[in-house]
Amino acid sequence: MKFIENAVGRKIPDEIDGKKLIPFQGAFADPIEKMDRRKYAPPIPKSHPEWMTGESKLCKGIEESIKRSGLKSGMTISFHHHLRNGDYVVNMVLDACDRLGIKDLTLAPTALFPIHKPVIDYIKKGVIRNIQGSMNGPIGEFVSYGGLSTTAILRTHGGRVRAIEDGDLHIDVAFIAAPCADDYGNANGVYGPSACGPLAYAYADAMFADKVVIVTDNLVEFPCLPISIPSTNVDLVAVVDKIGDPAGIVSGTLRITKSPTRLHIAQLAAQFIYESPYYRDNFSFQTGAGGISLAVTKYLGEYMEQDGIRASFINGGITKFSVDLFKRGIVRKLFDGQVFDPVAIKSFRDDLWHQETPMTMYANIHSKGCLVNRQDIGFLGATEVDVDFNVNVNTHSDGLLLHGIGGHTDVAAGAKLSMIVVPSYRKRIPVIRNRVTTVTTPGETIDVIVTERGIAINPRRQDLVEHFKHSKLPIRDIHDIHSEVIEICCEPELPRITDRIIALIEYRDGTIIDVVYQVEK
Amino acid sequence: MKFIENAVGRKIPDEIDGKKLIPFQGAFADPIEKMDRRKYAPPIPKSHPEWMTGESKLCKGIEESIKRSGLKSGMTISFHHHLRNGDYVVNMVLDACDRLGIKDLTLAPTALFPIHKPVIDYIKKGVIRNIQGSMNGPIGEFVSYGGLSTTAILRTHGGRVRAIEDGDLHIDVAFIAAPCADDYGNANGVYGPSACGPLAYAYADAMFADKVVIVTDNLVEFPCLPISIPSTNVDLVAVVDKIGDPAGIVSGTLRITKSPTRLHIAQLAAQFIYESPYYRDNFSFQTGAGGISLAVTKYLGEYMEQDGIRASFINGGITKFSVDLFKRGIVRKLFDGQVFDPVAIKSFRDDLWHQETPMTMYANIHSKGCLVNRQDIGFLGATEVDVDFNVNVNTHSDGLLLHGIGGHTDVAAGAKLSMIVVPSYRKRIPVIRNRVTTVTTPGETIDVIVTERGIAINPRRQDLVEHFKHSKLPIRDIHDIHSEVIEICCEPELPRITDRIIALIEYRDGTIIDVVYQVEK
Repeated sequence: MKFIENAVGRKIPDEIDGKKLIPFQGAFADPIEKMDRRKYAPPIPKSHPEWMTGESKLCKGIEESIKRSGLKSGMTISFHHHLRNGDYVVNMVLDACDRLGIKDLTLAPTALFPIHKPVIDYIKKGVIRNIQGSMNGPIGEFVSYGGLSTTAILRTHGGRVRAIEDGDLHIDVAFIAAPCADDYGNANGVYGPSACGPLAYAYADAMFADKVVIVTDNLVEFPCLPISIPSTNVDLVAVVDKIGDPAGIVSGTLRITKSPTRLHIAQLAAQFIYESPYYRDNFSFQTGAGGISLAVTKYLGEYMEQDGIRASFINGGITKFSVDLFKRGIVRKLFDGQVFDPVAIKSFRDDLWHQETPMTMYANIHSKGCLVNRQDIGFLGATEVDVDFNVNVNTHSDGLLLHGIGGHTDVAAGAKLSMIVVPSYRKRIPVIRNRVTTVTTPGETIDVIVTERGIAINPRRQDLVEHFKHSKLPIRDIHDIHSEVIEICCEPELPRITDRIIALIEYRDGTIIDVVYQVEK
Repeated sequence: MKFIENAVGRKIPDEIDGKKLIPFQGAFADPIEKMDRRKYAPPIPKSHPEWMTGESKLCKGIEESIKRSGLKSGMTISFHHHLRNGDYVVNMVLDACDRLGIKDLTLAPTALFPIHKPVIDYIKKGVIRNIQGSMNGPIGEFVSYGGLSTTAILRTHGGRVRAIEDGDLHIDVAFIAAPCADDYGNANGVYGPSACGPLAYAYADAMFADKVVIVTDNLVEFPCLPISIPSTNVDLVAVVDKIGDPAGIVSGTLRITKSPTRLHIAQLAAQFIYESPYYRDNFSFQTGAGGISLAVTKYLGEYMEQDGIRASFINGGITKFSVDLFKRGIVRKLFDGQVFDPVAIKSFRDDLWHQETPMTMYANIHSKGCLVNRQDIGFLGATEVDVDFNVNVNTHSDGLLLHGIGGHTDVAAGAKLSMIVVPSYRKRIPVIRNRVTTVTTPGETIDVIVTERGIAINPRRQDLVEHFKHSKLPIRDIHDIHSEVIEICCEPELPRITDRIIALIEYRDGTIIDVVYQVEK
């Protein structure tokens, strides 16, 4: 194993688990694009009428669907995370695989949540051998301490769909949780007890997996409309009692932060946007469901209403706060990859200009034009940021891998103005650092960092530095903010790590931007 | 060239123009399915932000888009026919190719209409070398007399998308006429002076062509919603003055037949459906825009209203007559591949349960489940039908190739009850014949033929024969109807043809069901 330093100064092995790695070469270098490769070509399926074959797609339960799908030990299975911390499907499928004696699977979810803690047992039992996907919480912790015998791969939303479409991530069987489906496999997420809104994360899985199983607790009369996943891409439909727990799927209590520090950060961010060259009629932005992000949206909406400025669209995770701006006409259109509350689900279901965004449309660098590239402003969170503007969203300062990437890196690369909105430290641990523990998003794609101690503009953006020269906003050098933070918190301890790599952080173009090492117990 | 007799008794050459042919082996034999092939894999594209590259997809006119697309002599270009006989785009592109000195193109439209007559000149000039697609009217006539130096290929709607997805029809550049589009390539057909409704015919072209050019006369602010063709699949956007003539795009005068004979046929067909085992709550059917078909829809709607029976869905070309049933709640949902009038366009735009049907969803035998397979009843037209229930929709009895296939063969194969509704003769030329001039749709997929002289049930459907044993409907043997027709019209003359094959009729699975010979002048 030879190590090569990549474009953000991280040492990347030339291969791991027998797979050659390409080190990150810059946000838009995209070395794979230059290899004259072609997309992944799934097998050619067939479509003969049921009245002739006597074969229906319907399966009584998960086990039958696994058997009929041809799933075998060593294969790759995939899942989407629209049911978030209410999802029952991942655990159900793994349980059935265990009972059927299927082993050595690669698990390729769009994300894993605390509810998926049983995954740890299935790793221990040998049902799962590798994970390619985001791991939030306990599973990440388990993997951090060396629980997985192979190297995990974390990808961005856009990076995952790129990997699937390009053939880097081959899915043998995709299990797609569907709150509403018919017996032919047409499915959506807008009706039923487990309603979750879009099924946007699962589009690529449906299109490129060899076999696709819809898992539903709400079988409706054919044809199920609207269609998020079409019958043309579905092999089997497994009917189960419950696919999820509504309390974990939608958040009934999404709230804007009440912390004065965080509200101050949000206010600074909104003011920065307001004074920026991007604040004009028909501008666009991305929101999330985090407390600061919601506050920025709220303040921005107030400015816009005052000025009679309307946004072209909001891209992102959609909440009732975004829907409110949309309904009031302050925002013209909503692009929606994931929703967080019942108000947003209802709007997604009923409003023609509230549009589902499959991940390739959202952020695939290997599409012919993804949405993040047309976004003016994105405000994003971080666990750490460094003086080179590199951002960490994956690991904590103790080295534990506790979060997925989501669309972070994608939005940062695409948006004209990408802002990190963070407190300068949390519980006496510096967020602004000399060097982030893990580079998730390269500094060259981050334009501004907004903290309660001031706003740092990336020196690469001299146009912005110039633009804000006379602003009354507290524009400061990132190094000054950093020094101040270190004075308060002291230099942070380095994580205690071994020399074994437990996960790769893949950049959206398929290169490796950083690796995560095993943490000592 | 060796000839092999196929499953409908037609002699098929083993190869033509250097391409190996597989003879038709039965409606569901699907020999290609058994070849363990994979889908066509398009090149991997890229998506870098315009603010970085300085490159926009926008082109001033067709010529610039052709140049930037990399189109060269010998390549294949494709078009959709939603603008029908009002389409300007095919002629515009060919004119520009001619000016740019591009020659020997293969033209792969979903259909050609009389407005595309200039295609003949471009064939003569050498701009076009081959046609793979339906030819309605003058171009078909020109090709019939040997005007094309190569062999044309005609495919069904489902067969064309199969050929594209399977890689049998490789498209270098797809030109997609779009009544509404933004500068990033998101496009729909529901707004603007050339509004045509769905863009369903163009989906496969957008997904599988190497390069995709949106051609629009109605550039709107980004993002254009709803999205029929997404920016992720579009390379260039060419803005032109007019993409079409509204008078040729939508028919303002769609009328139910007034001919007493045809009304009688429609009445018989509706009564047959009414008495059939398929007439029950939640049944489904396919409609077209032909005069008899519209009358059947009307009569059927009257029965349903009377009985309080509601249809699950109508599949097909949607007209104001279908929309009327939908609005009155007699039909629950509409699947729409193509619309014919402004009422249908408006409903398609505004009604959530009026769903666009890309052709792969409509009828692709190589998908995992297409819609025609879930259809109870289809009523279809014909130029000729024979005593083996084989249907011809392509040629006239003089051998001239004047019509495309549309979804005829697909619906016949998929629907549980496929009915041909035709007069027994037209202008003293028998429609019911001993042997059709060209086999478009195999008799094994046709269940019933309804004429003004009676209804013939295919003897393969003994269940239906039994079911209608005591019906008062004029159920007759096809041979009896045929004899009666011949008595009136005399035995028809055979077309005067040469021994040169000018076109192949491809079955939906990619095999060859018949060939069309050059007609003597």
